Amino acid sequence: MANVLKPKTLKGFKDILPQEALVKTQMLDTLRGVFRTYGFVPIETPHLEYTEMLVQETAEDEVGKQLYRFEDNGGRDVCLRFDLTVPFARYVVQHRQELGIPFKRYAIANVFRGEQPQFGRYREFTQCDFDIVGCETGGADAEVVQVIAAALQALGLKRFVIRVNNRKVMNGLASALGVSDAAIPEMLRIMDKFDKIGTASVQEQLQSALSVSLEVAQQLVSFATLSAGTPNELLKQAAPYKEKSELLAVGLQELEDLFAILQSIEAIQENIAIDFTIARGLGYYTGIVYETTLSDMPEIGSVCSGGRYDNLTQNFSKDPLPGVGASVGLDRLIAALIKQELVAEQRSSTELLCLIMDKALTASVHAMAHSIRKKGVVTEVYPEAAKLKKQFQYADRNGIPFVLIMGEEEFAHNTFTMKNLQTGEQESFSSLDEVLSKMKAASVDV
Amino acid sequence: MANVLKPKTLKGFKDILPQEALVKTQMLDTLRGVFRTYGFVPIETPHLEYTEMLVQETAEDEVGKQLYRFEDNGGRDVCLRFDLTVPFARYVVQHRQELGIPFKRYAIANVFRGEQPQFGRYREFTQCDFDIVGCETGGADAEVVQVIAAALQALGLKRFVIRVNNRKVMNGLASALGVSDAAIPEMLRIMDKFDKIGTASVQEQLQSALSVSLEVAQQLVSFATLSAGTPNELLKQAAPYKEKSELLAVGLQELEDLFAILQSIEAIQENIAIDFTIARGLGYYTGIVYETTLSDMPEIGSVCSGGRYDNLTQNFSKDPLPGVGASVGLDRLIAALIKQELVAEQRSSTELLCLIMDKALTASVHAMAHSIRKKGVVTEVYPEAAKLKKQFQYADRNGIPFVLIMGEEEFAHNTFTMKNLQTGEQESFSSLDEVLSKMKAASVDV
Repeated sequence: MANVLKPKTLKGFKDILPQEALVKTQMLDTLRGVFRTYGFVPIETPHLEYTEMLVQETAEDEVGKQLYRFEDNGGRDVCLRFDLTVPFARYVVQHRQELGIPFKRYAIANVFRGEQPQFGRYREFTQCDFDIVGCETGGADAEVVQVIAAALQALGLKRFVIRVNNRKVMNGLASALGVSDAAIPEMLRIMDKFDKIGTASVQEQLQSALSVSLEVAQQLVSFATLSAGTPNELLKQAAPYKEKSELLAVGLQELEDLFAILQSIEAIQENIAIDFTIARGLGYYTGIVYETTLSDMPEIGSVCSGGRYDNLTQNFSKDPLPGVGASVGLDRLIAALIKQELVAEQRSSTELLCLIMDKALTASVHAMAHSIRKKGVVTEVYPEAAKLKKQFQYADRNGIPFVLIMGEEEFAHNTFTMKNLQTGEQESFSSLDEVLSKMKAASVDV
Repeated sequence: MANVLKPKTLKGFKDILPQEALVKTQMLDTLRGVFRTYGFVPIETPHLEYTEMLVQETAEDEVGKQLYRFEDNGGRDVCLRFDLTVPFARYVVQHRQELGIPFKRYAIANVFRGEQPQFGRYREFTQCDFDIVGCETGGADAEVVQVIAAALQALGLKRFVIRVNNRKVMNGLASALGVSDAAIPEMLRIMDKFDKIGTASVQEQLQSALSVSLEVAQQLVSFATLSAGTPNELLKQAAPYKEKSELLAVGLQELEDLFAILQSIEAIQENIAIDFTIARGLGYYTGIVYETTLSDMPEIGSVCSGGRYDNLTQNFSKDPLPGVGASVGLDRLIAALIKQELVAEQRSSTELLCLIMDKALTASVHAMAHSIRKKGVVTEVYPEAAKLKKQFQYADRNGIPFVLIMGEEEFAHNTFTMKNLQTGEQESFSSLDEVLSKMKAASVDV
């Protein structure tokens, strides 16, 4: 035998164990169901792309260090995708004729970023994005917000708020107050920190970083922190600022139109709000932006964020293709669902384990398991005639609630012995239907 | 604006368009359901691994040219996985304590091979594997065959045959006839070609490639082509060979045990057979092997193959961990399901498109669509108040069968105008329930 290697995953990468994979599979199932209900269709793009498709030469400094970039065997400059948005821009331009516009897609897939590994953050992770491209105004933005709400509700989450803003509002105000376009990204970065550092520090940082007067910094902060109760009241409170900037006025109008639609849907009223401090870091947003926080777990940050990007395809086409979309934070949601006990963290979904008491009975047990599965019960057969202790340990370890114990005796007399591992109760039955009824009754009790 | 790039996918890679992605999503859903019913749990491993975890130094020549191998930014020698089996061997040894043995997993994920691109074959493709590790004998092999049958049946396929063999049988016979161990892989490679080149050519090639006498080649071929009717009859026909080799006798006994279990399950009798010509190319199989062919499409080759591998984890552990598993050929199955019309090739699953007749009605239409979705109908709202022609084109292009046309008139009088795009029929209704009943009736007609 050759050398034995110590098995290990690559630095910054992780395996997913069954407990987590089961929760993730169930969650993605629910999300796919919601996307489907709203008419979004799945697409896939390759994990590997020509580097020039994903990063512009000028942008290499920023993201370059995080890229998994190499030469393939044919000498091509390639890299692993770092998000699902840039490949989507390429995809939608490349297949524009076949897809038609508008186009609504979702994608659930892994992306790669060579960041410094941190607790709970890995260099490969799953993103879940959905987008509508080809519409400049109207219902598309509203639909994305509805899908976020429907998705979280379908997962069983009730107490969450989708906080909405419009880039045009703060950008318009900043320009009107003399902040240069070049300084706006820095302004947004600082504005993103109201929750963390407080109003006074934001104002101080704005003044120094943007080199503006105290008065300008005060005006930016006092607008951002407007906080009248309902969205309509807040829009009314902000209305006087419209005369300061045309762009700001357009932004407020878009928010007004958006909320007119959102407020027509009773079921999401508790889940929507306007918040002028929402900035979203990414450069490509141009209009409406949103973040979603769980009211009982604000510390985990936004679980679903997105917005409108009207220039995303500009690297691939002179014909602009405006879009709006959002990205679901799967890892944060998994943590939330587990903490709020909305999913069971289980080792398997098996309901019944059929033991093999004797090798000679293997065929009979397999046949019986087959007929039980046909009745809709998730049924395993222990894979060999091992010691009974080992077979029971398997059930225990995997949290399987019931075992069916069929020895020669049982097969000879056509009886069925079933043990409830939660109560320890073992009973004999005269038909399979009785066994299943008992299992059902016992599961309801639990 | 910067230069505009022509969007393109990397050589050998492809995008998946919605039509195909919808079929794939639906198919994977079905497969996950079947795996779950038998107690298999999902796991995930990273796309990227240390190269030494996936290939041994000595094996580099064979697979090396196909590897996507590079140095990461930390100078580590890494590569993209080329299958799901080798990473699973690493995974199961690394997490053996947490997982416990036996362990049943499935994995659906992409793998990468830098092969010369051919029609319909790409350098990235999705594999779907399921395995049971930790059992040397007994029901595990039988369960894998049952899962293959259940999976294909769940997809709607009925006419297929899982052809089963045991490596020990041919290996035993070959050794007994004086074929060297080193020549056995070559023998299996030639044996794999009965269907393609015929019995005479196989015999000729065996004689010359293995440097054996005509008589030995004849004996190998005449055993491999034994073909008595039922599995039991075939096993009986082969029984006299048992005295030639102990290994062959063990292999036949294992087949006998396996078929004793499989024959207890009425529902799969049409779908199982023994075939001594089945070899499976991969070096790691050590016992039972299987291939699955669709009786109406034999030309596409095996749609699900696998077998027993008792030494797979030997690179990672001195404590052997025997296993048995299979891999579903997703691309071939997608082709088969489409050709046999078992899935609809559709652009979307949307049943009803709500038009926006006037921007001012947007909120009302969104609210109505929300209430229709709650009744379980997959409902889209056109994303903006575009020209009606464009909205109808969208429905046509995406194969949406019904549109709801709600103008001022309809909202004012609380009526509902619905058009069936398949018949061209447009009708007015006095309640939403009437609309949905009509849709349901019309869909049944189609």
